[in-house]
Formats: sequence, structure tokens, C-alpha cells
Amino acid sequence: MSQQHALRIGLFGFGVVGEGLYKVLQQTPSLKASIEKVCIKNADKPRNAPAYLFTTEKNEILHNNNINVIVEVIDDADAAFQIVSAALRNGKAVVSASKKMLSEHLPEILALQQETGLPLLYEGAACASIPVIRNLEEYYDNDLLQSIQAIVNGSTNYILTKMFAEKLSFKEALLQAQQLGFAESNPTLDIEGYDAVNKWTLLLNHAYGIVEHPNNLVFNGIQQINSYDASVAKERGVQIKLVAQAAKLNNGTIAAFVLPQWVATTHPLSFVQHEYNGVVIESSLADQQFFYGKGAGSFPTASAVLSDIAALRYQYRYEYKKLLQQTPARLGSDFHLRVYVRFNEASVIPKSDFTTIEEWHSGQQQQYFIGVIAFSKLQNSLWWKQPDVALIATSDPIVQDVALKNLQKKSLALAGVAVA
Amino acid sequence: MSQQHALRIGLFGFGVVGEGLYKVLQQTPSLKASIEKVCIKNADKPRNAPAYLFTTEKNEILHNNNINVIVEVIDDADAAFQIVSAALRNGKAVVSASKKMLSEHLPEILALQQETGLPLLYEGAACASIPVIRNLEEYYDNDLLQSIQAIVNGSTNYILTKMFAEKLSFKEALLQAQQLGFAESNPTLDIEGYDAVNKWTLLLNHAYGIVEHPNNLVFNGIQQINSYDASVAKERGVQIKLVAQAAKLNNGTIAAFVLPQWVATTHPLSFVQHEYNGVVIESSLADQQFFYGKGAGSFPTASAVLSDIAALRYQYRYEYKKLLQQTPARLGSDFHLRVYVRFNEASVIPKSDFTTIEEWHSGQQQQYFIGVIAFSKLQNSLWWKQPDVALIATSDPIVQDVALKNLQKKSLALAGVAVA
Repeated sequence: MSQQHALRIGLFGFGVVGEGLYKVLQQTPSLKASIEKVCIKNADKPRNAPAYLFTTEKNEILHNNNINVIVEVIDDADAAFQIVSAALRNGKAVVSASKKMLSEHLPEILALQQETGLPLLYEGAACASIPVIRNLEEYYDNDLLQSIQAIVNGSTNYILTKMFAEKLSFKEALLQAQQLGFAESNPTLDIEGYDAVNKWTLLLNHAYGIVEHPNNLVFNGIQQINSYDASVAKERGVQIKLVAQAAKLNNGTIAAFVLPQWVATTHPLSFVQHEYNGVVIESSLADQQFFYGKGAGSFPTASAVLSDIAALRYQYRYEYKKLLQQTPARLGSDFHLRVYVRFNEASVIPKSDFTTIEEWHSGQQQQYFIGVIAFSKLQNSLWWKQPDVALIATSDPIVQDVALKNLQKKSLALAGVAVA
Repeated sequence: MSQQHALRIGLFGFGVVGEGLYKVLQQTPSLKASIEKVCIKNADKPRNAPAYLFTTEKNEILHNNNINVIVEVIDDADAAFQIVSAALRNGKAVVSASKKMLSEHLPEILALQQETGLPLLYEGAACASIPVIRNLEEYYDNDLLQSIQAIVNGSTNYILTKMFAEKLSFKEALLQAQQLGFAESNPTLDIEGYDAVNKWTLLLNHAYGIVEHPNNLVFNGIQQINSYDASVAKERGVQIKLVAQAAKLNNGTIAAFVLPQWVATTHPLSFVQHEYNGVVIESSLADQQFFYGKGAGSFPTASAVLSDIAALRYQYRYEYKKLLQQTPARLGSDFHLRVYVRFNEASVIPKSDFTTIEEWHSGQQQQYFIGVIAFSKLQNSLWWKQPDVALIATSDPIVQDVALKNLQKKSLALAGVAVA
């Protein structure tokens, strides 16, 4: 473990992250890592590096015996998977930042590492600069991890921050995020929660040993949140954040989902503003821990990639302890969620799906209620993803057994009024 | 690295941390770690564990070939050093939480590890539950670490929080902290900054490769902070925290000190209230990162100890990369500090030591000014540790070259009034 390797890197991609990495490696001679060759798609684009470094032929890197590390920071998930697979099969260690590729191909990615015995590190694919994978792997290696809640997408957090702090509309805030380079020109991946659920797929694996396709997770983005939702939240002294979370249920299974959520000002995630990310980990012993750092932009990602490269010098690899050396946890759906539901048309909402409805507010155009619904009902429906509806988890949204029974008693008394 | 060891533990100490650890190991069978024997000082005290586990004879553990790990959570620094030394020399891996012992014996501790090739892990000696050593070692392994600022002592942070939030006097707040078990019955170690500077000694090593005795660091505690200081801070919209910090200076050396400091509400450390700890790390690439967790109490420390034990299964050891594999940084004193100085008697304050004095406020009994002083003047004087004086670093206290020149120009104009 203390033997040092000289790292000779083949880099795929020379966009903002790739070029940033190139510059930084020149400033960090102690790493003993050099970029030997860079594979790019467009040979005609002018580049801030010597021409001899570049190639458009991937096999010049993948079959180069002098190169022992592949760093892959390209956009195209399919191409990325091919590169990563070929690299591992050709005996090269890999660092990747492609969350979409990694989460959609997680079983293959795990198998490839088992098969080849080679490291594939991807800290930059989770919370950019926050070392969350490394910590879940190395530090929360015990049976005591209770829950993890995180803001994993900087673009949506920036938009929500602006909607709150400056009362911008969703569209105005999105435009600002795009102008600052925090959101893609096609922002669907960020806005509709795909990026967050991809990251969450990876973190669920390192936290609990769960291997699940992102499509099978309950998730949403912030595309339905409007100024009315923001003003209701403000009145109640909470913020709205896109929160990815997982929690151990009483029966030992794991509740996991990515939804917009009310966040109380006393909660550490309320501190996470603009393009920052944050992760709150609760363990039986350590109580609550909070990690916070920049979540969007080229340098934070390059930083995580750089640290992965540094770890390769010591043959560091993820051991997937929760999956391979312990009994991996399973996802569970035997719980309820307390949610805020806003809508124009009451007919769109399947009120009878709700176990209890606790409050009902009718405005002139917009109405909302707060109710408790079985998680399985959300899993099996899509009404809450419709344009004129917003479903936002409340501050402490998971409701289990006993709490639920008490609620139902209370609700019976209210029912006549509430569900009227 | 992926080969797993069965860990057979000899435990020294069965106080709150030791007993907590014993309980938790019983709940975490996946760790494959068992406590074989516990060495205690007082055989007559009733214990919540089977009698056959206990001994008062340390060699029953240190010379027991069946035991391969020593966990040491005792109070007595000298005894702890003897135990840790003997354990390493006898071929056993060690986990320790004794910050005083570790910081005062750092050179020997480093040599012992080099000599024996055995791991000595001590995450619980830094920020209790926050995995800061592990992260500095593994993740910030590059030349780009700019600065680190931390609240490393939960007791003093609890007291300051209470003085601020509830306008308690220092004495009332201290009493509360003691009643809640956050401060020792003899609170000097916490209150006067000794505990913080011991932890800082360890972190300076893992951050920058610096090996320095805690006595050689500039530090203070919060024993001089009074309600007047708190009210001035409040007026200015800042909090007072005991902040340990280190920053890379323009000349490449490291500024390091532990002093009470103004913390702006926009700074992540302002989020750290009550007995919590927090660490802010700034690197050229990742910008600002923030780690937050419980800093006082038995379970947070037991949590860190447990994670160290878990890491031993994989032969994890600190590599002291910044010290052993890079050019270690040196401490520097070629900088100035902007500070708030409050006093009753102006004669106590060596005003001529200050390069500039920017503001001067005279109250009825208390006076204060804000000025800039060469760090070396603080290193070589003790007036700022006197009872009726408080020296508090301002929000962004380190002043270097250019900034200083501008200040001096401004100050010349003010001098007649200010230093009058």
C-alpha cells in the first residue's frame, strides 16, 4: 500500500474539467502524474496545450502500454462506458466522473472491477468536491449508519436559492444559472432530477450496498415548483431544496427517494445555498455529521478527479464493503410520506390514495393540502409528476407504524372537514 | 489490502468512551472485532461487563499474543504514552484517543510507527466524530491546500454559544457545560485552549507535514472573553468562536494559531453551535469545504475509535504523506494579524507594538481598539494572555505584504486621532 506508482495518464475529454485537470497536474509535481495523451472528438478546435498531446483515435490511448491510468471526463455516457470497459480489460486503472454512465451500468461496473481486480474511482461523479464516497466507504464502515440526506445537484439548488432569496420566477432563476454555467443549455437532466437520482444510485451503493437502476428509484426534480410554493414555504419558515435521502426503516430495509423537500432553518441542509452541495449523515454513535462543498463547476469536479488520481498512487480501490463483505441492505417501501401537494384542479389528485389529510388550504387559483400517503402509492402513480401539481416532502417526511396509527386516529376526527 | 484480519482487542480504559465502545462492538458483528481483555485502574468499581474481562495488570494485555490490537482511551497522558509505545514494540496495532499524549510526543509517535511498521490511528483525538485526519491524509493529498480553519473544542464552543444566545456570563455558561458533561470538572485544559492546541498540533501534521510541539504554537482559550466582548461582536454582526487555523502564506510557509476570533454569519463556522465542531478546508480547486459533527461527548469519540478499528481490518495506516513523501511545509511568522483588543488599563497594552490602529472605542470601564500587529510580536509577549485583556482575531485576520502597505498609508492619516 505504501509503494508509489508513477502515473502515466491517458485523458479522454478536454472540456472544462479535462483542461482544468491538465493545468492543475502541471502545478502539482509531487503527484508524479503526467498526461501522456488526450483523446478528443473535434480535432479542429484550438486547445491550450501542445498539439502532440492530442489524438482522435481512442485506441492510441487504450492500447498504449506506457499508459497505466485512464481518466475519463466526457459527456457521452455510451462512449464513456465503452472506454471504461476497454480500459479495465486492458489492465489500466480508471478515474471517471460520468455519473449517468456509472449509475446506469452499475452492475457491469461492479463486475468489471471484480473480474479485473483493477480500481475504478469516481468521487467526482457524486458530490463534485465533497469526498462523500470515500467517507462512506472508509469511515462509515459499520452497522450503524441510520440515514443520509443530501443536496447533490448544484444547478437546482442555485435556482431554488434565487427563487427564495430574490423572489425570481423559476424561468428567471434558470436563465441566471445557465448564464453562470451552473446549468446545461438543455437543463432537463438537472431540473427534472435525473442527475440527482444518478448520483443517488451511486451513493446508495456505497452507503448500504444497494444495487438498483436509477429508473427504479422514486425521484422528481424541481420543474413543478412555482412562486406560490415558495411563498407557502416562506410563511412556514422553511426552504425548499431538492433532497436525496435514504434512511434505515424499523424493519431493516432502506427507504430511498429524491424529492423536493421542506428544509427547516435549523437543519444543516438549510445552510446549503447557491451552487453548493451538502450531505448530512446520521449514525447511531456520531449523531449528525454534515459535509459541505461546491457542487457545480469545473474546478470542484477536477478537484475530486485529482484526489482520485492521487489515491491511485497507493493502489487505493473501493472495496464495496457493504455489498461484498456484509449483508447488503435492500430497498423497502413499507413506510408513508408526509407531503405538501399543490394543484389547480382537485380532480387530478387521487385523494383516496392518502391515508390522512391533515390540512387543506384553498386559495383563489391554487390549493394545497398536507397529507400522508403510502410510499408504494407514489411508486405506482405519476399524477405527482404532472405540470400543474407540486408534491413536496415535508421537513421530516418518513412516517412509520406507530406514528401512523396516531395520525389515523387524529385524522378520523378531521376527515369530514379535511377531505370534503 | 482487501485481506481481512480478525481483530482481538485489548482495551485500556473503561470510562464513558471505553464502555460505549464495548457496547457498540457487541452491536456490530460484521466488524469481526472482539474485546479480549480490559485494563482498568480501579478494580473495585462496579462495571457493566463480565468480571473475567477485567484486569489491573497492563502486561496481561501487552504481552498477550492472542491480542493484536490495543485501544487506548485513558486520561493519563504519561501512562498512555507508555502503553502505546509498548504495544507497538510488541507488534500490536494501536488506536488511541489521547490528544495530549499524541501531540506532546508527536516525534516519538512518528518514529515508533516508522520503526515498527505498525499502524497507530487516532481520529478520535482530533475532532471526535468528524473524519478530518482521514480526509486530510487521503483526500487533500496534493499541493493545493490553502487553508484550514476549525472549531475543535466542543466545550468552549458550547460556552460561547450560551454567552451569545442566552446572554449568560462566562461563569454561568461554564457551569452549564459542566453539568451537561461537556466540560471537565477542572476545565482548564478546555477553557484555556490547551485541548484545542493539542488537536491542532496533530492536524497541522496531517495537513502540511509540520512537526511542532504544542507549546511552540501561538494559542489562547476563551477564559478572558466577557459579556462586553460578546455585545461588541453582536453589534458588529459577528459571533466569537475559538478558531484554530492554518494558512499558506505568499512565501510558502504556514501561518498557524489558535485564538478566539470573530466569525461572520456568512462563514460556515457560524453554523457550528453548542458542543459541535466544524472544519473549513480551502483548496485551490475545490474552493471551500466544510465538515461538521459532534465534538464533545463519549459517543462521538467512540464513533471515531470504532471507525479506526474498522480500518485496521484492512491494514490501513496513516502514510504521513506531506511529511514523508513530499517536502513538508514549515511554520512562518512573516505576517500580521488584525485583532480586537479590549482592556481596562491602557497601560497594559504595548500600543507601539501595533503597526496600525484602525479604530479606538472608549467606554466607561472598558475600552477596545482594532489594530494590526506583527505575528512575531504576539509570539514574543504575554500581555494578551492577562486576565483583564481580551485579544480576539477579526473575521479575516491574516494581513500580508500589499494589504499591509495600504493599511499603513491609511493609518498615517488616522494616527494622530487613533493612537492618541
